[in-house]
Amino acid sequence: MNPIKVALLGCGTVGSEIARLLDHHGEDLAARIGAPVELTGIAVRRPDRHREVRADLLTADAAGLVASDVDIVVEVIGGIEPARTLLLDSLRANKSVVTANKALLAEHGADLYAAADASGADLYFEAAVAGAIPLVRPLRESLAGDRITRVMGIVNGTTNYILSEMDSTGAGYAETLEEASRLGYAEADPTADVDGYDAASKAAILASIAFHTRVTASDVHREGISSVTPSDIAAARALGCTIKLLAICERVGEPGEEHVSVRVHPAMLSKSHPLASVGGAFNAVFVQADAAGQLMFYGQGAGGAPTASAVLGDLVAVARNRVAGGRGPRESAYAALPVRPIGKVSTRYHISLDVADRAGVLASVAEVFAKHDVSIAAVRQEGRVGDASLVIVTHAAPDHALQSTVDDVRQLAVVHDVVSVMRVEGEQS
Amino acid sequence: MNPIKVALLGCGTVGSEIARLLDHHGEDLAARIGAPVELTGIAVRRPDRHREVRADLLTADAAGLVASDVDIVVEVIGGIEPARTLLLDSLRANKSVVTANKALLAEHGADLYAAADASGADLYFEAAVAGAIPLVRPLRESLAGDRITRVMGIVNGTTNYILSEMDSTGAGYAETLEEASRLGYAEADPTADVDGYDAASKAAILASIAFHTRVTASDVHREGISSVTPSDIAAARALGCTIKLLAICERVGEPGEEHVSVRVHPAMLSKSHPLASVGGAFNAVFVQADAAGQLMFYGQGAGGAPTASAVLGDLVAVARNRVAGGRGPRESAYAALPVRPIGKVSTRYHISLDVADRAGVLASVAEVFAKHDVSIAAVRQEGRVGDASLVIVTHAAPDHALQSTVDDVRQLAVVHDVVSVMRVEGEQS
Repeated sequence: MNPIKVALLGCGTVGSEIARLLDHHGEDLAARIGAPVELTGIAVRRPDRHREVRADLLTADAAGLVASDVDIVVEVIGGIEPARTLLLDSLRANKSVVTANKALLAEHGADLYAAADASGADLYFEAAVAGAIPLVRPLRESLAGDRITRVMGIVNGTTNYILSEMDSTGAGYAETLEEASRLGYAEADPTADVDGYDAASKAAILASIAFHTRVTASDVHREGISSVTPSDIAAARALGCTIKLLAICERVGEPGEEHVSVRVHPAMLSKSHPLASVGGAFNAVFVQADAAGQLMFYGQGAGGAPTASAVLGDLVAVARNRVAGGRGPRESAYAALPVRPIGKVSTRYHISLDVADRAGVLASVAEVFAKHDVSIAAVRQEGRVGDASLVIVTHAAPDHALQSTVDDVRQLAVVHDVVSVMRVEGEQS
Repeated sequence: MNPIKVALLGCGTVGSEIARLLDHHGEDLAARIGAPVELTGIAVRRPDRHREVRADLLTADAAGLVASDVDIVVEVIGGIEPARTLLLDSLRANKSVVTANKALLAEHGADLYAAADASGADLYFEAAVAGAIPLVRPLRESLAGDRITRVMGIVNGTTNYILSEMDSTGAGYAETLEEASRLGYAEADPTADVDGYDAASKAAILASIAFHTRVTASDVHREGISSVTPSDIAAARALGCTIKLLAICERVGEPGEEHVSVRVHPAMLSKSHPLASVGGAFNAVFVQADAAGQLMFYGQGAGGAPTASAVLGDLVAVARNRVAGGRGPRESAYAALPVRPIGKVSTRYHISLDVADRAGVLASVAEVFAKHDVSIAAVRQEGRVGDASLVIVTHAAPDHALQSTVDDVRQLAVVHDVVSVMRVEGEQS
């Protein structure tokens, strides 16, 4: 049997683990695929800096490697260029692609799919979302006969670590981020993680598959965790909640007029919610579908070995298709649902205020909510020396109405301080 | 585009839901497959008894339906015959099969695979294990590049319901089963569930896929829940545990001399273990793999709609293969690992005894453990009026050594009663 030739682009934590596993599990992989796998080259920027893999495989010429006689290109460089050009060239030349590149998929997924379609090559990307957790395949294959209505999850380990730490230590955001960087839980430039870009890319990919609709990163409403304060954490705790950065993909609106809403933001989540106990670098994703009901997937969302596991699973699938004929799923974007802007999406708010401790305060605050047609689910007022604490949890209302309510409440003379404003998820409104 | 013609065998809770969804989501399914799906017939024993589906589709002639011009046969009859003959005939005639039949797969999976292989047809069975939870596809595809070491889960809703009820009410097994039957949580003949046959079939299927080894139901060590007593439940609670019926598939032994162990039995599980909080009809399965680490899958393990969701996901995959060419994964049994009998598998026991309250009792009990080379992890003795309670939790030891230990302890004059013997899972030994 002719070997399946594989080019590997990138040899960092994930890439070197892929090379190691290809070598270590070569016989098993061959038995599962029906042909041996041969790693023909590893493209890196500085070949002299990689001693963990076979020197004869290393090359700085990624374009040359991709253009050589290979069947499958595995990409773990990350970022848009040169990955985009290399993968488009690969797919156009009918070389199947396995990639872990969430940013590229979330921005240029349609182009990649089109190139794959034109040549008949496969495009697989399980590793791009939630590391080792099988999520792309279950969504685009196992649930292909169902109607997915909601995907909600924790898909970024760095922010989850930071929020967990803030919750347990009471420390502020900046301080906790610094500590996380020192311990290696956050990258030197943590922007992609803490500002939600990474989670937004994953949300775009998940929403695209779940709703058979093209969703790009720019369609995702994105809020990071840098504005989460110890006051927010304390307010959440007082409510029996914890704060998590959530990626939420929803089918919204009436049948026939359906939209999708895709957003990433911190939110309060009841401590009894299964996502609340997902700690550290773990990821977990809830999927709600009409027939299947509620499903949850949990596992390691990042790291060399877990990500390599997902890449190799895809590699086996793609290689099997080469050996046995056939193709993996193509892009499914037939539904083409419009994306609803965050302002028009129903959410719930938790608002914690310091207010004057005198008669009529609650009435004037409540009046603002009523003016914006925001219904209050729960309210708790506690007197203190000099002022009072007022905590309000709303029912679901359009986000713009909630935002306007907060803006107006902020202007009230009786409101001394808006201590915390946070969306609430995970419960029925 | 020519429609994909589907024959449905069986029209109970699951079958009627499949028929309904095929009708209701016809346009979506067509868009996802690339061709419309046409349900050409539904085989049932008594066509006059089904008013929930189109009368013109119903037939009592299953063999005739299977032999007619169809592309895909969906089987939700259950049981060995006539399902076995019908599916073998279908596969031999190059008709792809989607089945939810765990008993058939666990007994005759190899024959079905061989028939599929001979003709090039597909054999899919996501619905056979854990209902709507994507598990077969993740194991045989997503983790195809990894080395799975352990699969442990709750895969039977009826027994999970009964054990949860016994735990919360303190009632005995017989009484709780009766109540479960009355409420519709247990079938009129509950044998397949309560004696562990259903879970054992699922364990055999999971182990076969996970370990690339043929495992049949008869290879599975099987203990049901009928001997679980309120004393066991109380003993578990005293230890901060709960009792669950677990299906456990393990890779055991040294590399080069690997075996698989597949077993279904009730076990104590710490309340802090994620499986401990899986209640009622929900299923959850943990998967441990070398590179992926620990993964968990959770969802509805049974019921018409969830099972139909899994069947339809497979139907879309199989139909796509018909439209686009190609095939799903075949049987992967190349590893052919031997199955290790339960006696040689390492487990841990919890043993609760009523003993005489006098000097030397602990010494004589401990001596029995030492004789069988069973190491004690924890012991707790509490004096009472007249006698004493002695609770022992062992380290991992071969199951036959643990059984012999219990047998010998039972013979000791100082032991008045063996209150509870239960395996312990979910912690490191």
